[in-house]
Amino acid sequence: MQVLAVSVVLMSLLEVGSQMGDQKTQGRHPRPLAGVRVLDLTRVLAGPYCTMVLADLGAEVVKIERPGGGDDARHFGPFLPSGVSAYFAGINRGKKSVALDLKDERDRETFLRLVEKADVLVENFRPGTLARLGLPVEELHRRNPRLVYAALSGFGHAGTETDRPAYDIIVQALSGLMSITGDRAGHYVKVGASVSDILTGLYGAIAVAAALFHRDRTGRGTTIDLAMLDCTVSVLENALSRFSLTGVPPEPLGTRHPSITPFQAFEAADGPLVIAAGNDALWRRLCEVLGRPELAADERLATNGLRTEHREYLEATLEPLLAAEPRDVWLAKLSRAGVPAAAIRDLGEVVADEHLRSRDILHEMHGGEGEVFITAGSPLRMNAASPELSSHAPELGEHTQAVLAEWLESAGS
Amino acid sequence: MQVLAVSVVLMSLLEVGSQMGDQKTQGRHPRPLAGVRVLDLTRVLAGPYCTMVLADLGAEVVKIERPGGGDDARHFGPFLPSGVSAYFAGINRGKKSVALDLKDERDRETFLRLVEKADVLVENFRPGTLARLGLPVEELHRRNPRLVYAALSGFGHAGTETDRPAYDIIVQALSGLMSITGDRAGHYVKVGASVSDILTGLYGAIAVAAALFHRDRTGRGTTIDLAMLDCTVSVLENALSRFSLTGVPPEPLGTRHPSITPFQAFEAADGPLVIAAGNDALWRRLCEVLGRPELAADERLATNGLRTEHREYLEATLEPLLAAEPRDVWLAKLSRAGVPAAAIRDLGEVVADEHLRSRDILHEMHGGEGEVFITAGSPLRMNAASPELSSHAPELGEHTQAVLAEWLESAGS
Repeated sequence: MQVLAVSVVLMSLLEVGSQMGDQKTQGRHPRPLAGVRVLDLTRVLAGPYCTMVLADLGAEVVKIERPGGGDDARHFGPFLPSGVSAYFAGINRGKKSVALDLKDERDRETFLRLVEKADVLVENFRPGTLARLGLPVEELHRRNPRLVYAALSGFGHAGTETDRPAYDIIVQALSGLMSITGDRAGHYVKVGASVSDILTGLYGAIAVAAALFHRDRTGRGTTIDLAMLDCTVSVLENALSRFSLTGVPPEPLGTRHPSITPFQAFEAADGPLVIAAGNDALWRRLCEVLGRPELAADERLATNGLRTEHREYLEATLEPLLAAEPRDVWLAKLSRAGVPAAAIRDLGEVVADEHLRSRDILHEMHGGEGEVFITAGSPLRMNAASPELSSHAPELGEHTQAVLAEWLESAGS
Repeated sequence: MQVLAVSVVLMSLLEVGSQMGDQKTQGRHPRPLAGVRVLDLTRVLAGPYCTMVLADLGAEVVKIERPGGGDDARHFGPFLPSGVSAYFAGINRGKKSVALDLKDERDRETFLRLVEKADVLVENFRPGTLARLGLPVEELHRRNPRLVYAALSGFGHAGTETDRPAYDIIVQALSGLMSITGDRAGHYVKVGASVSDILTGLYGAIAVAAALFHRDRTGRGTTIDLAMLDCTVSVLENALSRFSLTGVPPEPLGTRHPSITPFQAFEAADGPLVIAAGNDALWRRLCEVLGRPELAADERLATNGLRTEHREYLEATLEPLLAAEPRDVWLAKLSRAGVPAAAIRDLGEVVADEHLRSRDILHEMHGGEGEVFITAGSPLRMNAASPELSSHAPELGEHTQAVLAEWLESAGS
C-alpha cells in the first residue's frame, strides 16, 4: 500500500521533471552570489536554511561537520530506503561537506586557514560555543577582517537570556505568534511549518547579502547576531500595533479576518475552501452566487462593519448554503463572479499544481540509490529563470580533500 | 476602560523607550545599504515589508504614491486618534513619499527620470499593470541598464495563472500551509500573522541585496519575479518530503510534533505552556518534575517511539497533572530540571519582556499628534547594534519637492 503510494508519487514526479526541463530554457539565472565562499557551521534547520538560500543564489557553501555524526539533521526522519535523511537532503542541496573536528588542534588550525579564504561564516551554535572552542569572533576577524560573520541563535548573542534552548515550538510560544494562531475557542496551534527557524534563515540571508555588498564597497566585514525570537516577533505586524493601541491582546481567530467579513474558510460538500469577500460589492456578488440575492438586502449584513458585528449570524446563514455543493462547483461560480476564493489544498493537490510546475517550484532530489523525492525549489526567480538547483546533498566529508586542496593550495601548504 | 488600557500601555512604552536609548550606545550599525536608492511602487503589505527591510538596512526608500489616496494601506485600521493608520505606519517607517500620477504623461516622465537615478525599483502590482501604464520593464532597463527591478505578486509574472487576485489567506490556502496548520480534528486555521505576504517581502529583500552585490561586481541589473505562492510553498520543508515519500498528505497536528512526544502545548491551572521533551532522558526528568517518577517505567511510554504511538494515553495521563499547578510553578520546575518549556505568551506578555527590550525589538512609532504606539523593530542586529529606526512614516507626498530636487538637480532640469 505504501509502496504503491510511493510509485504513484514517483510517476507524477517524472512528469514534473520533464516540465521543469522545458522551463529551464526560458532564461538564465544570474547566480548573483557566484564566487562567494561561505563556511557553514550550521546544523538542523535555521542555519542550513540560510545557507541553502545562499547556495541557491550561486555561493559556494562548505559545511564544516564533525567527523562521525555530522549535522544532527542527518539523523532526522523521514528517511529514504537507503537510509539517507530526506529532512537533511531537502535543506542541504548543492552544498559541500568537509569533515573537521573543531576540538582537535590541527583541524582547528585548518579551519582557521579556511576562514582566511572565506567571504562568509554562518553558525547557529548556542552563544559562547565557538569561543569555548578557542574560536572567538575576534580571532576570526583577526584572521580575516573582511569576513562576514553571521550567528543565528534562539535568543541572540546579547541580551538578558542568551543561553536558553530554542526549538521552533518554544519560540512560536514565546514570540506571541502562537497566541494569535488557533481556533476561535482559544485553542492555540503551532504553524505547521517551522516558521521561526525559517524566518531566521531568511533574515540571515538578507543580512549576509547586504553585508557582502557593504564589504565590497568598504572593505569591512560585519558581525551579525540574529535571534529566532526577534525574527518571529518581527512578523507580528499589525497585531502588535492593535495591542498597543487598545491594550487588549489579540486572540486567535481561526481563519477569520479581524475586520473583514466574510473573509475565511467554509466547508463545501466535499472539502474546505476560503472566500475573501473584501468589500460590499463582492458581498453582493457572493449572495448571487449562493442563489440568495435577497441576503444582500438583509440589514444585519448590508455593510462590512455590520457583517463583522453579526458574524455568528452570517456564518450560520452561509454554512448550510455552501455545504450543499462540492468545492469545485463553488470555485468555478465564484471565479466567474470575480469573488476571490480558493481551495484549501493538501500537499497532494499542491504537488499536482500545473502553475507551480511551470514556475519550477517543485524540486526533485535524488538519494544515493536512485531514490527520488520532492522538496520545495527556490522562489528566487531572476531574469525569467529559476536557479539551477543541485539534486544532491553531500555525504559527510564528501568534499574534504577537494575543498582543502582548492581553498588552501595557494597558501603555500 | 479602553482609555485606561491605552495609558497603561503608553506608560510601559516610555519605560521601553528609555531602555532602548541605553542599548543604542552598545555599538554602531553599519547600515550596509547606505547610499542605495530604492524607488518603491509597492502597496499594502508584501512589497512595503520588503522595502521596510531595505530601509532598515540604510537604503533611501522613496515611495511613489498616487496623489489623493496613496498606498491603500493608509486607509486600513487600526487608526490613531489623529486618523493616521497604524497599519501603514508600522511598515513604512523611515521611507520618503513622493506623489506622482503614473497615468499622467508628465508625471510618468518625471518617474522615468527618477528611474535613471535609482539603484532598485520594487513593485507589487498585478502582472501587466506597469506595461499597461506605458512602463514595461524593457523601457525601465533601457533607461537604466543597472537597475535592479523586483516585482512581487501573488502568482508571479510567468506561469499559467498570473492574473488571479492574491490575498494572504488565499495563498495560505493554495500553498498547502493551511492544510498542515490547525487542530487535530482537521479544522484548519490561518497563521495569525500574514506570513505569505511577509515571506515574500523577505525573499524580496534577499533577492534585491544579492542583485545589488552582483550589479556592483558586473555592472548588470537584474529582473526579479517573486510569487507569494512560490515563497509560501518554499517554507513547507519536510512536510513536502514526507508527502512525496509516503503519498499521504500531512494533516494538522495542533501543537504536536509529528514524531517526538511529548513536544506540544498543555494547559496549566492558569494558562497554556509548551513542553519540548525531545528524548528519553528529558522524558524521565519530566516525570520527576510532575511528581510521577514511576511513569518513566510505564512500558507504554518508555521510548519516544512508544510515546508517539500511545499519544492519547500519554496526554490523558499528563493533562490532569499539569492542570493542577499554575504555569509559572511548572516553568520554574522544568527550567531547574533542564526540560525545555515555555509559556504561550500573549502580546501583552511579549511587550513586557525584558529580554526583547534589551534587544531593541520593540519599536516606538509616533503619530502626527504626539501619539505613541509599538511596532516590531528590526531583528537585523549588526556589529552589536540594532538599526537606528525612524519613528515616523511619511505623509502622502511629504517628500515630493525634496526628492525631485535632490535626485534630478544634476540632470540639468
